[in-house]
Amino acid sequence: MNSKASKNEIPCIDGIRSLPGFPVVLAGIKDNIITLAAFSFCSFRPPMVMIGIIPSCYSHELVKEVNDFSVNIPTPELLEEVEYCGAISGRDVDKFKKTGLTPIKGKRISSYLIEECPVNLECSVVGTLDVGGSHTWFMGEVVTAYRRGDYDRSHAMMYWQREYRKVGDVIKARRR
Amino acid sequence: MNSKASKNEIPCIDGIRSLPGFPVVLAGIKDNIITLAAFSFCSFRPPMVMIGIIPSCYSHELVKEVNDFSVNIPTPELLEEVEYCGAISGRDVDKFKKTGLTPIKGKRISSYLIEECPVNLECSVVGTLDVGGSHTWFMGEVVTAYRRGDYDRSHAMMYWQREYRKVGDVIKARRR
Repeated sequence: MNSKASKNEIPCIDGIRSLPGFPVVLAGIKDNIITLAAFSFCSFRPPMVMIGIIPSCYSHELVKEVNDFSVNIPTPELLEEVEYCGAISGRDVDKFKKTGLTPIKGKRISSYLIEECPVNLECSVVGTLDVGGSHTWFMGEVVTAYRRGDYDRSHAMMYWQREYRKVGDVIKARRR
Repeated sequence: MNSKASKNEIPCIDGIRSLPGFPVVLAGIKDNIITLAAFSFCSFRPPMVMIGIIPSCYSHELVKEVNDFSVNIPTPELLEEVEYCGAISGRDVDKFKKTGLTPIKGKRISSYLIEECPVNLECSVVGTLDVGGSHTWFMGEVVTAYRRGDYDRSHAMMYWQREYRKVGDVIKARRR
């Protein structure tokens, strides 16, 4: 890359579009599934993650109703199901039935987990953040976690601005 | 991957460790620099991002003092500077001087931007989130953005659990 290329002021929204990508997850909320890249780490102690949902979405009602959610990490083999669950509202269809994904009862939450995903986190909502933006963020403490023995972080997927990506190669591993 | 591998319950913190990665950014806070993968998108309208900082960090004091921050996207060429700014506290050293990175005065914020990074976002703090976890999250509205003409999302870096990664290849681009 030529570091001498000129830098220009751009619309602020294009600054957001310039971000590389975020983990794409399937969130299980009650008996619905929603595909999210508005997903982040939140805390190590206690372990928490957060999901961002647009208020007009069906899942927004559901998470307020049940106060928990599951986070399920899909692999690229599940791309078709991931796209479907991000495109269609659960108000109209049963996404478990339509995709054939297998609902698993949570141990400590009421929302379903997804069997086909190699990592499942049961999350209990501990906070809500609404600062007047397009998304409401729900912070969830991870209360139970499951992982398939053969899972590696590189098996997950990233998403941003209409592009699904693989997890990139390791450039450097920090020493302890 | 063998989807027949068995799934086991794991410690909740290992669920967090199983996440693939997050964009690594250099946040400029006042005249300090901090390396963060505790960084997320927050909102499209208005455009907002959020950064997570451990309360004992020097940058935590600084962001509360100046109420703004810059987000600067580094490329792998800056890995040494990125590692340095994530390892050393700005309480003791001037990281701009030590790394040779060039501070640029913000147009609408008091924190400095970093010239060598191809994308710079000026962010004004609009909210703070503390739900009792290890990190306090500061939500910033993007009030000015700059991008180098040759920048592409694939030039950024990801980080998680001691691994710096490239941005992965596109698996599929969604049609509009």
